[in-house]
Amino acid sequence: MTISPSWDQPATSLYTDHYELTMLQAALHSGAAHRRSVFEAFARRLPDGRRYGVVGGTGRLLEGIENFRFGPAELEFLARNKVVNSQTIDWLANYKFSGNIYGYAEGDSYFPNSPILILEATFAQACVLETYVLSVLNHDSAIASAASRMAGAAGGRPCIEMGSRRTHEESAVAASRAAVIAGFASTSNLECGRRYGVQTVGTAAHSFTLLHDSERAAFAAQLQSLGADTTLLVDTYDVEAAVRTAVELAGPGLGGVRLDSGDLLAQAREVRTLLDSLGNTGTRITVTSDLDEYAIAALAAAPVDSYGVGTSLVTGSGAPTAGMVYKLVSREDDDGTFVPVAKIAKNKTSHGGRKHALRRRDAKGKATAEVIGIGHRPPDDGDDRPLLQQFMVDGVLTPGWTGAEGVRRAAERHRASMAELPGSALRLQRGEPVIPTEFQEAS
Amino acid sequence: MTISPSWDQPATSLYTDHYELTMLQAALHSGAAHRRSVFEAFARRLPDGRRYGVVGGTGRLLEGIENFRFGPAELEFLARNKVVNSQTIDWLANYKFSGNIYGYAEGDSYFPNSPILILEATFAQACVLETYVLSVLNHDSAIASAASRMAGAAGGRPCIEMGSRRTHEESAVAASRAAVIAGFASTSNLECGRRYGVQTVGTAAHSFTLLHDSERAAFAAQLQSLGADTTLLVDTYDVEAAVRTAVELAGPGLGGVRLDSGDLLAQAREVRTLLDSLGNTGTRITVTSDLDEYAIAALAAAPVDSYGVGTSLVTGSGAPTAGMVYKLVSREDDDGTFVPVAKIAKNKTSHGGRKHALRRRDAKGKATAEVIGIGHRPPDDGDDRPLLQQFMVDGVLTPGWTGAEGVRRAAERHRASMAELPGSALRLQRGEPVIPTEFQEAS
Repeated sequence: MTISPSWDQPATSLYTDHYELTMLQAALHSGAAHRRSVFEAFARRLPDGRRYGVVGGTGRLLEGIENFRFGPAELEFLARNKVVNSQTIDWLANYKFSGNIYGYAEGDSYFPNSPILILEATFAQACVLETYVLSVLNHDSAIASAASRMAGAAGGRPCIEMGSRRTHEESAVAASRAAVIAGFASTSNLECGRRYGVQTVGTAAHSFTLLHDSERAAFAAQLQSLGADTTLLVDTYDVEAAVRTAVELAGPGLGGVRLDSGDLLAQAREVRTLLDSLGNTGTRITVTSDLDEYAIAALAAAPVDSYGVGTSLVTGSGAPTAGMVYKLVSREDDDGTFVPVAKIAKNKTSHGGRKHALRRRDAKGKATAEVIGIGHRPPDDGDDRPLLQQFMVDGVLTPGWTGAEGVRRAAERHRASMAELPGSALRLQRGEPVIPTEFQEAS
Repeated sequence: MTISPSWDQPATSLYTDHYELTMLQAALHSGAAHRRSVFEAFARRLPDGRRYGVVGGTGRLLEGIENFRFGPAELEFLARNKVVNSQTIDWLANYKFSGNIYGYAEGDSYFPNSPILILEATFAQACVLETYVLSVLNHDSAIASAASRMAGAAGGRPCIEMGSRRTHEESAVAASRAAVIAGFASTSNLECGRRYGVQTVGTAAHSFTLLHDSERAAFAAQLQSLGADTTLLVDTYDVEAAVRTAVELAGPGLGGVRLDSGDLLAQAREVRTLLDSLGNTGTRITVTSDLDEYAIAALAAAPVDSYGVGTSLVTGSGAPTAGMVYKLVSREDDDGTFVPVAKIAKNKTSHGGRKHALRRRDAKGKATAEVIGIGHRPPDDGDDRPLLQQFMVDGVLTPGWTGAEGVRRAAERHRASMAELPGSALRLQRGEPVIPTEFQEAS
């Protein structure tokens, strides 16, 4: 297992809003840029009706923060376009994050106001990371949260991530990674396989059948080249005829068939019956075609062996962004004392002060509340689980969070975190968060 | 203006589904891989209730097809994981797209079944591009289509793209680019500025105010460092007090104020009255805070100078993917004759055969229909506009579609295309496509 990223990531420093750098310039001017500060990323609420969220992107983000450097190309752009002044450009040329980062482990569940990421650094160092931190966490957590519901609805049958074509090509890699963390068995995305060591799989498309002079010729070519264990797509013309041809050509060792259209429930039953009657009791049935968690649940009684999920997964099944914000919650004053700060908002819950968090659990290990201590660690009653991990110490990564190892560990953590939630977390109907969030002010 | 891309794009070849390469292997085995083929990308329908779509991503895609090569890192991954056999790996090692690509110019409007991209190449060459083609077009067209509605609703007031933090960091760059093509004035995304020469802008965040000991100190720092023409964020504490402080410190030359919360309609009026009463008649008001096309339209009567749009834009305002598919519509048989092909689907409209397209226009130049000729060019009645451009000739790019020049030209084209549509295209209510799509079979 690799710990460092297995690909040549471009510099991440300009994945940044213009105002982060102009604020930096003004804060360098006033001197406040060097005040030690605490920024936190959190979601004020879950997407409408969702019962839990799943943290995605942390490992990818930590890799990217390592690459958050301003090289000649970036500095030249900023100077030529007069985005910031030369003092600021000199400061950026030496930028390397050297603060502390804490947060929820990737794959863990989260709730409204959970402090998912906490950065302790100077204002200057933490301010310029805002856009990038939110881009990664908002995207990947949205996908991980949707994937977790789908995997839950599938009830142990494998889900395969197949949505690359429905989202930006780089989002596709991240979505695939997040899906595997949140319970998917594999992905069609080759770049995700390369970067993160995730298993990639595939079947065939209608174009492959249409390319050949007949469906029989197409099936024969696929079987000869890829072996009988391949999965044949059987709905280009007539499903029953295709299944008979497939079995005739492949024999009892045919790996699988895929259904991509029509009434999947009825078709899966007919195809299962037909396969069994032909002696192919071991041939698997994969269904695809605009599945989401509800469609997956509706197929629970059908003889389906795996689900291929595309559009709904990569668009977060109605919630394409996790709605996280990144807020300054505490900073030094001129005496070096930390002062909690918060915007005075009429319609938003904002809590100044550095947060700590634990998951309250009953004696059976089931979660009962998300407890957030403001400015102090909430006391652990013995069954509880501390939620914050330290990812960076003075700018140095702690091991195990990134690369393929990070993905593997996050998938394990997701399983453990789901096992700890009340069973009602898996209900697909809209509802309240499955456990309440409780704030504890410092006493 | 640069024609070639201004950044070091990584290899794009593994933005690809596993099955594209296993189909390639099987087709190389059968020999059918070398049949000349026509693939087309199109959307069977527009997102629910939308009246037109806007093509986004073409220039970015053409840049990426130039980079669609399999280098040592990609080939080593495919071999080590046995994704395909050695014959296929040898073929991929020499991959360079050498076919023809036609399609709708980026920025143009499109309708159901418009042939947005047409690839003529061997099956092998065109098959492996499927996932990447769709990722780029589906994402960027979704954003461009949403942006166009927002810019239309703004009725000439500038819209600023500010959504980077709500989507994947690379999607953010592409979304920013698509927004500017479809009518936005500028973006906060620095990487988009760097790659495509798009204007970047910014204001300030609440954290900047909270960092300082007082709002007055924060405003003073920003004004001293960035000049009076900057835009101050005035809703951290009390809006009226903030506006008075801003004017007191900046004088009549204060560039702008930003409102990011509350009742924007009422607040904009109050702030405009206050600014005018203080003599700051030239100070602009920018509003942000979860705007979409409906909220923008609702602010038409408010004294607002520009709109900052984030989440809704980058998530396609309810339609985060354009739903395009990529289908084999024609291919050679063993005699070298092209044969139209199509899946036999119960609930999907599929038309085999190579498409041509023109926009039928009346004598006043207003669009009346999208005319798609199957296997032939529909006759032009004199006022019509041919829609297909040739982007690649035998694998060589035709100039003007990529880089900063491509973005600039696409934005011009979008303006012209919108001017040609009936005025009802700008209605935000759900409805049918504003012009019908008519198929003409070969006679």
